[in-house]
Amino acid sequence: MPDHRKIHPNTIHLIIQPILDLVAICAKKGIEHAILSPGSRCAPLTLAFVRHPDIHARTISDERSAAFMALGMAQQLGQPVVLVCTSGSAALNYYPAIAEAFFQQVPLLILTADRPPEWVDQWDGQTIFQADVYGKHVKKSFQFPDSFANEAQVWHAGRIVNEAINLAKLFPAGPVHINIPLREPFYPAEAEKFVFPDHPREFTSVTSQTQLSEESLKHIKNRLNEVKRLVIVPGQQKPNAQIQSLLNELATNKKAVVITDSISNLQGDHCINLHDHWLGNENLHQDLAPDLVISFGKSVISKSLKQFLRKSEASHWHIQADGQAKDTYQRLTRILACSPAAFLNWLLLHLPLQSQDYFSKWSSLETKVNQALPQVFETTEFGEYPALFFLLKKIPPFSKIHLANSMAVRYVNFLGKRNQEIICNRGTSGIDGSNSTAVGCTFTTKEPVTLITGDMAFFYDRNAFWHNYTTPNLRIVVLNNHAGGIFRLIDGPAAQPELEEFFETKQQLSANHLAEEFGFFYLKVTSMEELKTSLSDFYEPSIHPKILEIETSSSKNAELLKEIKGKIRAVLDES
Amino acid sequence: MPDHRKIHPNTIHLIIQPILDLVAICAKKGIEHAILSPGSRCAPLTLAFVRHPDIHARTISDERSAAFMALGMAQQLGQPVVLVCTSGSAALNYYPAIAEAFFQQVPLLILTADRPPEWVDQWDGQTIFQADVYGKHVKKSFQFPDSFANEAQVWHAGRIVNEAINLAKLFPAGPVHINIPLREPFYPAEAEKFVFPDHPREFTSVTSQTQLSEESLKHIKNRLNEVKRLVIVPGQQKPNAQIQSLLNELATNKKAVVITDSISNLQGDHCINLHDHWLGNENLHQDLAPDLVISFGKSVISKSLKQFLRKSEASHWHIQADGQAKDTYQRLTRILACSPAAFLNWLLLHLPLQSQDYFSKWSSLETKVNQALPQVFETTEFGEYPALFFLLKKIPPFSKIHLANSMAVRYVNFLGKRNQEIICNRGTSGIDGSNSTAVGCTFTTKEPVTLITGDMAFFYDRNAFWHNYTTPNLRIVVLNNHAGGIFRLIDGPAAQPELEEFFETKQQLSANHLAEEFGFFYLKVTSMEELKTSLSDFYEPSIHPKILEIETSSSKNAELLKEIKGKIRAVLDES
Repeated sequence: MPDHRKIHPNTIHLIIQPILDLVAICAKKGIEHAILSPGSRCAPLTLAFVRHPDIHARTISDERSAAFMALGMAQQLGQPVVLVCTSGSAALNYYPAIAEAFFQQVPLLILTADRPPEWVDQWDGQTIFQADVYGKHVKKSFQFPDSFANEAQVWHAGRIVNEAINLAKLFPAGPVHINIPLREPFYPAEAEKFVFPDHPREFTSVTSQTQLSEESLKHIKNRLNEVKRLVIVPGQQKPNAQIQSLLNELATNKKAVVITDSISNLQGDHCINLHDHWLGNENLHQDLAPDLVISFGKSVISKSLKQFLRKSEASHWHIQADGQAKDTYQRLTRILACSPAAFLNWLLLHLPLQSQDYFSKWSSLETKVNQALPQVFETTEFGEYPALFFLLKKIPPFSKIHLANSMAVRYVNFLGKRNQEIICNRGTSGIDGSNSTAVGCTFTTKEPVTLITGDMAFFYDRNAFWHNYTTPNLRIVVLNNHAGGIFRLIDGPAAQPELEEFFETKQQLSANHLAEEFGFFYLKVTSMEELKTSLSDFYEPSIHPKILEIETSSSKNAELLKEIKGKIRAVLDES
Repeated sequence: MPDHRKIHPNTIHLIIQPILDLVAICAKKGIEHAILSPGSRCAPLTLAFVRHPDIHARTISDERSAAFMALGMAQQLGQPVVLVCTSGSAALNYYPAIAEAFFQQVPLLILTADRPPEWVDQWDGQTIFQADVYGKHVKKSFQFPDSFANEAQVWHAGRIVNEAINLAKLFPAGPVHINIPLREPFYPAEAEKFVFPDHPREFTSVTSQTQLSEESLKHIKNRLNEVKRLVIVPGQQKPNAQIQSLLNELATNKKAVVITDSISNLQGDHCINLHDHWLGNENLHQDLAPDLVISFGKSVISKSLKQFLRKSEASHWHIQADGQAKDTYQRLTRILACSPAAFLNWLLLHLPLQSQDYFSKWSSLETKVNQALPQVFETTEFGEYPALFFLLKKIPPFSKIHLANSMAVRYVNFLGKRNQEIICNRGTSGIDGSNSTAVGCTFTTKEPVTLITGDMAFFYDRNAFWHNYTTPNLRIVVLNNHAGGIFRLIDGPAAQPELEEFFETKQQLSANHLAEEFGFFYLKVTSMEELKTSLSDFYEPSIHPKILEIETSSSKNAELLKEIKGKIRAVLDES
């Protein structure tokens, strides 16, 4: 080695010290959890995470599930969770969850072990092109140095880890990837001790705030003087008591109409939560048309709400601290680069009183539907929608509910206000990782975690249960209609001869085999009576997770949905 | 619409005609199979593939498995198999199989339905960034037009389909992606008939051949005159009788040493197949060192062979028609851009007789190991390696054997010559899709398809069995040691306290639940006697697939492998 190259004093264990530094930086920056998947190439990372005293490492064999579990944890923790996998296609199995984390703005630190560059694409084992493999679905992808002969490479490694974690946390949070080429030996020699540095190099991103200028606020205030019919639409976000209270005040004191999907986690008493029952009824649209829509947070579920707003002539302002926005309603006119709480606070002071008449139209619809629902369901036969109406009341308050795409989240959204935290993978709206995301959630809380899922999503992600960790607080409700029932509920496919084979993909599976295999308690119900009985102790503490399978018929569910819609329509038409 | 834009006469059914054209072009170009996954965005593609009379469409709900099944089919058919999925993370679940197909050079035509460009990244449903999403792991990614208002767009669509299929087939074959934005409505109106064009526009890539120039051959001939110790190493490829016969002649008539891993599918009588038993024994290396290595095909499994060649001072020539090569042995000196059969044919005429002494050293080692093996296994206790020695003799000749990574393929390679076709995902060497790849194979043949897999690979890809198609000729042998046993067989991890939890990831599952759930016949054996009994009718025809679970202990297997290696070493040292 040439004399002018210096070895960093920390690199006593030449092969792995920068990896030990990496783990020490993670810990120093507040990362507490890592999900590892087995492999040899990643062994230095595996051993370092397992051996670090401040990091809890778990191992999950199917990388697709592993990444969704990390997502489910990071959603709760609000801190990046580390993922570690070996080289090759392992990294690709992470990808569905990474895309979900990107669009859902959940921080993840993805560490993929790789062969060193000279061995990529040389027909020698588990190797793909890992650099930048996640394309636009990570905030950034870094390439870790593959040798540390030069002091600058050690500095580079430490800098990358700092940059990556800072970036993952920076609003909007998201997944960040470090690809880490590793050379043999992967395992420490017998006498070799892991020494984590007490003070690894750290640089932090100091929290900052964006505020609207006084001049902008003056303009906005002028503009608000023209507004009589303000609608506020929060998108998907975590529960937030401060924002909830501001929204309640805006509704009660200013008569702003606040429309909250279940995934907004902001369904206050004075908010509109049952809008899916009447939006789409075009006779009502004129009376309900807003002047202005103010949104913040991410996506909404309700397709009828989106279509209603797209057809309106309202202006749309989106509040987002980084000055970015989507034009979801095709009416975007202003982006307010500040925090939603700060703006709502200002709004409460400066918004003129809105039209009482307009506010009443919305709240009267809400009241009517709310009053009608119990009787509607009492007079409806058994099926997944009535079952959910009953079930939702039995879920312990202030616990966590995970909803799978695609019908579970829609039904729950139809049913209005919840006081539990609602979690659903609406970043990409896939069915691929809902079990694993819920399992990840159980790793962060002792409260009950209820997963409500359809049979397709449930069986798709069955590897969520293939591991050695206990999840005693997990409660799974499988709406098993032996099909992708949604295809019968929308107009197009239901009319095609290919419906059952190629859209619903009818299947006869039941969750009982899976329950037996993984040692879960299992209950199956096919009637309201059975459901009521089985729910009596469903939330009793248990050492094993519990599965409640609600078996219904897909075609019957389609009829019931139509029937219920008809009944509610009749109630609304009456008045 | 401006007057100067013309509507193509074919576009009567404005929304779907270019999709019908696409499917008609596929059929015309010889594509016979499509694997679809359910979705609404992709419905026009789904319906068109299902309704085309010359294409057999199947539907598979888990896209990860779907893509590996398509791979398993295309491996057999030598023709692209079509994959169709909906928008969003579905496309990402294809990715592990696509990377495998890329490195294994298997043709696939991947059709991902997408939202039209204006709706990407607007918080509106199942949307990711699908353009170029497979990065360097497809030969090319095309973006299909998203409207057909202009005649040129119809021409563009047809051209893309032709280009994509031609490219997928062109040597080296591989996956090609077309991202297809689709707008509503996705379903035909009631009266709307699908009319496939009788003569969709087609352009074909006419087969061509690359030949070495006379002058090059003269140089090569001169160079060959200096060679006395020629070693030929075919990499992974399909069985090829012509090449097999040329290799046999080169071995018998010219005394070339032909070293064939099981995945070369070229393990002739005069080839060296048991090299893994003595390569790595450095005392022998000097006598066995070649002057020249000639290779063709893709990767080899044997790590000891690779290391032996890397340490040698041989020159290495690789034969590949496109003039590309990998430097797998770090000794590459010439790339011969021609077909392997043509060059071997020429070689047979012009290669001087090689050293008889050198040839005999290899063949005597082969003979000794071959003679020793039966007795070695007879005197060894039960474990997965002895079980495989016995099992392999019972697999019907000339059937198909799928091997999972990582120990299954290694054990079988240790055991030498097979007359069945050996298939293994050695492109990326992942454990993620071996079940599905074998299931795909059963869709193309009525011969028995035997999958030999470890428990990790088997459970990882259990969704391979989640569909409505029968696979009566599938025979699955699960080597269940309740762990990723390979980690105990290599030196590093076995010495770490984290071995069982974080490397082997010990698990207690057995295949019986899965067998019951999917209606498979199931047998479990824990001794050689049970194994012998159970194999007596394992290959009898059946209406259901059969699983044979060979349960062994991971630590015992590690001991046995060491013991067997020791016995063979002793046999070789004796002489």
